[in-house]
Amino acid sequence: MKALRYYGAHDIRYESMDDPVPQSDRDAIVKVSACAICGSDLHIYHGHGFSEDIGFCVGHEAVGEVVETGRGVSRLKVGDKVMIPAAVGCGSCRACLSGVVNLCENGMAGCYGLSAKLQGSQAEAVRVPAADVNAVPIPDGVTEEQALLMTDALATAWFGARNADIVPGSSVAVIGCGPIGLMAVESAFVMGAHVVYAIDPVPERRALAEAAGAIALSPDMAIDTIREATKGRKLDCAIEVVGRDETVDLALRLVRARGTVSVIGVQQSRRYPFPLERAFGTGLTFRIGTCSVPEELPVLFPLVQSGRLRPEKYISHRLPLSDGAEAYALFDARDGGALKMVLTPD
Amino acid sequence: MKALRYYGAHDIRYESMDDPVPQSDRDAIVKVSACAICGSDLHIYHGHGFSEDIGFCVGHEAVGEVVETGRGVSRLKVGDKVMIPAAVGCGSCRACLSGVVNLCENGMAGCYGLSAKLQGSQAEAVRVPAADVNAVPIPDGVTEEQALLMTDALATAWFGARNADIVPGSSVAVIGCGPIGLMAVESAFVMGAHVVYAIDPVPERRALAEAAGAIALSPDMAIDTIREATKGRKLDCAIEVVGRDETVDLALRLVRARGTVSVIGVQQSRRYPFPLERAFGTGLTFRIGTCSVPEELPVLFPLVQSGRLRPEKYISHRLPLSDGAEAYALFDARDGGALKMVLTPD
Amino acid sequence: MKALRYYGAHDIRYESMDDPVPQSDRDAIVKVSACAICGSDLHIYHGHGFSEDIGFCVGHEAVGEVVETGRGVSRLKVGDKVMIPAAVGCGSCRACLSGVVNLCENGMAGCYGLSAKLQGSQAEAVRVPAADVNAVPIPDGVTEEQALLMTDALATAWFGARNADIVPGSSVAVIGCGPIGLMAVESAFVMGAHVVYAIDPVPERRALAEAAGAIALSPDMAIDTIREATKGRKLDCAIEVVGRDETVDLALRLVRARGTVSVIGVQQSRRYPFPLERAFGTGLTFRIGTCSVPEELPVLFPLVQSGRLRPEKYISHRLPLSDGAEAYALFDARDGGALKMVLTPD
Amino acid sequence: MKALRYYGAHDIRYESMDDPVPQSDRDAIVKVSACAICGSDLHIYHGHGFSEDIGFCVGHEAVGEVVETGRGVSRLKVGDKVMIPAAVGCGSCRACLSGVVNLCENGMAGCYGLSAKLQGSQAEAVRVPAADVNAVPIPDGVTEEQALLMTDALATAWFGARNADIVPGSSVAVIGCGPIGLMAVESAFVMGAHVVYAIDPVPERRALAEAAGAIALSPDMAIDTIREATKGRKLDCAIEVVGRDETVDLALRLVRARGTVSVIGVQQSRRYPFPLERAFGTGLTFRIGTCSVPEELPVLFPLVQSGRLRPEKYISHRLPLSDGAEAYALFDARDGGALKMVLTPD
Repeated sequence: MKALRYYGAHDIRYESMDDPVPQSDRDAIVKVSACAICGSDLHIYHGHGFSEDIGFCVGHEAVGEVVETGRGVSRLKVGDKVMIPAAVGCGSCRACLSGVVNLCENGMAGCYGLSAKLQGSQAEAVRVPAADVNAVPIPDGVTEEQALLMTDALATAWFGARNADIVPGSSVAVIGCGPIGLMAVESAFVMGAHVVYAIDPVPERRALAEAAGAIALSPDMAIDTIREATKGRKLDCAIEVVGRDETVDLALRLVRARGTVSVIGVQQSRRYPFPLERAFGTGLTFRIGTCSVPEELPVLFPLVQSGRLRPEKYISHRLPLSDGAEAYALFDARDGGALKMVLTPD
Repeated sequence: MKALRYYGAHDIRYESMDDPVPQSDRDAIVKVSACAICGSDLHIYHGHGFSEDIGFCVGHEAVGEVVETGRGVSRLKVGDKVMIPAAVGCGSCRACLSGVVNLCENGMAGCYGLSAKLQGSQAEAVRVPAADVNAVPIPDGVTEEQALLMTDALATAWFGARNADIVPGSSVAVIGCGPIGLMAVESAFVMGAHVVYAIDPVPERRALAEAAGAIALSPDMAIDTIREATKGRKLDCAIEVVGRDETVDLALRLVRARGTVSVIGVQQSRRYPFPLERAFGTGLTFRIGTCSVPEELPVLFPLVQSGRLRPEKYISHRLPLSDGAEAYALFDARDGGALKMVLTPD
Repeated sequence: MKALRYYGAHDIRYESMDDPVPQSDRDAIVKVSACAICGSDLHIYHGHGFSEDIGFCVGHEAVGEVVETGRGVSRLKVGDKVMIPAAVGCGSCRACLSGVVNLCENGMAGCYGLSAKLQGSQAEAVRVPAADVNAVPIPDGVTEEQALLMTDALATAWFGARNADIVPGSSVAVIGCGPIGLMAVESAFVMGAHVVYAIDPVPERRALAEAAGAIALSPDMAIDTIREATKGRKLDCAIEVVGRDETVDLALRLVRARGTVSVIGVQQSRRYPFPLERAFGTGLTFRIGTCSVPEELPVLFPLVQSGRLRPEKYISHRLPLSDGAEAYALFDARDGGALKMVLTPD
Repeated sequence: MKALRYYGAHDIRYESMDDPVPQSDRDAIVKVSACAICGSDLHIYHGHGFSEDIGFCVGHEAVGEVVETGRGVSRLKVGDKVMIPAAVGCGSCRACLSGVVNLCENGMAGCYGLSAKLQGSQAEAVRVPAADVNAVPIPDGVTEEQALLMTDALATAWFGARNADIVPGSSVAVIGCGPIGLMAVESAFVMGAHVVYAIDPVPERRALAEAAGAIALSPDMAIDTIREATKGRKLDCAIEVVGRDETVDLALRLVRARGTVSVIGVQQSRRYPFPLERAFGTGLTFRIGTCSVPEELPVLFPLVQSGRLRPEKYISHRLPLSDGAEAYALFDARDGGALKMVLTPD
């Protein structure tokens, strides 16, 4: 089959590789109908990946059709249209069965496309381990593209908003207005936020945040504008969607006493200089982590089905999988208003 | 001064009565700039009032300006624009100070306009006891009419929605689409409901519910339509805003196993035949009661200021106070699309 | 095999019946090492059972050893020591997989020993459908007897206490001090109750409640004593564990404004005269239903392992299964301090 | 009057100073009957105080009798026995009125005994600003010593346990077993913890933690012992009660994926090297701050009255106020099992 393979920094190639085959009778093979590039794929693209492997297939957001199931697969059958959430678990433990695969009690939590161990899904087909749990049938009323955006981006945005302790009436900052940040803006409004400040240096992204109802600010204006607008009280919560020390700093400065900071941007900082003294004086809840997609779906499905959340709005490009290398470059440059890049096998 | 006074069933008169005077140094006198008629005022209008008194001033929703304060009033001053929530408390106990006046620990919870004991506010002026707690300054960004609709109606609607355990993604029924029911529809959406079924026999009210985003149904269609739409699963929660046995029955039939029914319609039933066996089999949370307006305001103010809630939409008539008797008759007949009736002293 | 079979009111017989056999490849057969009689078994014993069947095996609390598994059983193997929770579900739907079998989405929620459809477990062996979900391995540090008391009684008591909204500092009434009521007393203390009033007409049961730390009262003293002790404020919550109209009445009278009543006694009342007017005036949360045992186990296991909960204290009799008829009679008469009756196949 | 005054590191003197006088008609003067030394007083004692002032009266835990009230004080009268919580607020804003003085909206949150601005309460008398809010009558059933230990220590311990998200069944670490740590152990059990690991280098303090039901560990053993006991899963939550970088590190290492760390030890670190990458990978809630005593009292009063919490157990010394300097030295040295030091004016 054809797939996007990683060969080093800025070197993603559309190439042939072996077709995926089941490794256990609980596996399924899914023919990919569409896949997408995630902000965290850029970490790999920049070369500071999560393994030393070369040549593996990248990507962790995909939808498609089941074309083969092992005998131990009981809840899926050939022909089912499924979404393939980014992270997988053993599928047998209590955590996995209740949808929290990233707390897999058997230590088998993993993610597609980070190494050769679990090949990615930016390909014509992908092997899904423990498929009863790790592939989710697309329900009626959810389009394939919507499902694709729920395999990671919308679920992460929603999780980040939940972690921020948003309740009806809250005031919220969202720092970083890529696709996940924009969906976090929408999530915050669905949860009842009365105001959302969306902070990003890129004017096009700020315009999209405003279209979603936010007050958009460039980072250098954020602190002063928000202090003034709130008469010094600051905000109930902030969601950090970037993954840099400066944006974590900013989040900590924007929330009020006893406020909440929720970090969902990919963090690689091992010694972030945390202002403990200040936080002790004012009171703070600081929450950080990654989402488990299946845990969020029971709430997200009806919100998408009813049109309260429309993640597909943030698809900026639809390209053939064979243009994958160009898609990565475009997304990395944030060129042409690049947001969510959807790739379709030919 | 002039005021609306109760003389028996269907007999509300615009008449002179004594000006209100302070009875304690913690009281304030408020010159009323606008007042409104509430659905629960119709209970009095129909003659099955809450006391045997005759000639008292009715009404419990008003806004105005402070014109006199006792020496013990420290948080208000003459000239302040205030809203006067329907229920009052002693203003000194912990419950009152934290905003839950209807749990007043000194047993002084009361409501304007139910008897001669605490004269109503459909008048040119009204005495506010323990005014530091029982009158609330209208904040910037909230209009007088919005504040008026927050003295009872919107606060009750919001409380009813909170009591229904609505969370993002919930499915909700609102039974009864008068002003409070319509505001409950909007409240449910702000809390993240993915669908709201609004049930009322009056087509004009159903139309307003649809304009607010609900799926409107007549009561006779509700059970079948909802069963079909949810494939038998029924709804997460139902809000009863009418106050009759049949509508409580309906609420109980519309919610799913382990769902929640929230009753905010005024109930006078002493032996409602509750289907315990069925509820035991399926699991149920049944919540009932009245709201304490000040408890809801910290959340409602920013939601109104930001335009997420617009209670003033449901004002159907603006009339002089001198037309109060006609206003009662109109509202009672639900004529001419009568919803919220606002009365202004001349 | 030998089993206890139902032949009519007060007619339980220890007799032979066919050995259980798998009906699906997801079933397991469990050799029973101990079973117990539940308060709700007395409903059947009194003849107003839940079906018209005759001759079926009764009982729904058992532990034992897996002796046969179908090919579709993946999480259990022959030789495993398991507990068999009272209620079962399809084992495949999301509700079942997350432990809430009594919300089984495939409508297959059921209970052992109510009819011939699903034979009971007061027998030498029992068929467990969808055994991966419906049988639970007994973890290290939990004895067989403890596990037996967690198949229904302790889980129901705990669920009832959760439903009562108990938080640290709460004041609680428990109405009915049979085994489940006594475990509800202990559950309330583990949840942080500062005082528990235990109400029962039987002095021996009151003595046990006092030994557990409660203040024990006879029903006729309850209202006055509690009103006086709380200076009229009444209690935060009440748990009803009896299943009669009078005890539901009592629960409603014992809770404070905005308090919570939790009903776990088996209810067969179809038109309970609910005092809606009073509840509307004071504010109330009324919660009712049955527990799903697997949902409660992740919390109960560590509490039993660490000795914070000791359900085995409430075993009053250990008898051979062949004495089952006498055990039922004893328990029904509440003779000799009969509480939890444990039966062991010979 | 006589008072303990600060003159520099390790230099606390028992000396005369001016009697306190009201500065506003909302103030009260309280004759101190007992006061106590808090762990955070040692920060001042060590010379890295919170101001440059010299000669001010120290201390922020006291109980006594009201001897003078301004005309604006309405809820207290001369002769009332009161407790004086450590922190004060304006007493007029919504935050203060609902008990959260450290979120005072008028920016008047302060603490006794940190500078000359608000003289401390280790004295024969103390001025209480906005006394209606900042002094709390001691309720029946609470002794003076219990009340004294609730002016800061027990309230902080309880708040720290709440911030740790403890629920029934939780596993907990408490790091630091001074008086507050020991009360945090007890608080955790009242909240339903099934196991508490108490970590401290001092054997006498570990013995007290064990007497309270904890498993006591020295810091060097903590990580390995807990990892082994939990089979690598680690704990649900950790409470840090020390205020050093190493103990925050330890807390972060002891909690499981998606666990909670609650920091209540006084923090002066401005650039604590926080392991963001690890926390991102596992998921974490990190909560930090100081308690508002009045916010905790409605729950703590009944728990102390009923004997579920017995803070007075941790009083190790009762000395005359005139021995204050020695008491500080003893407490600082942790000599002779020094825990809570109570001082009584002669």
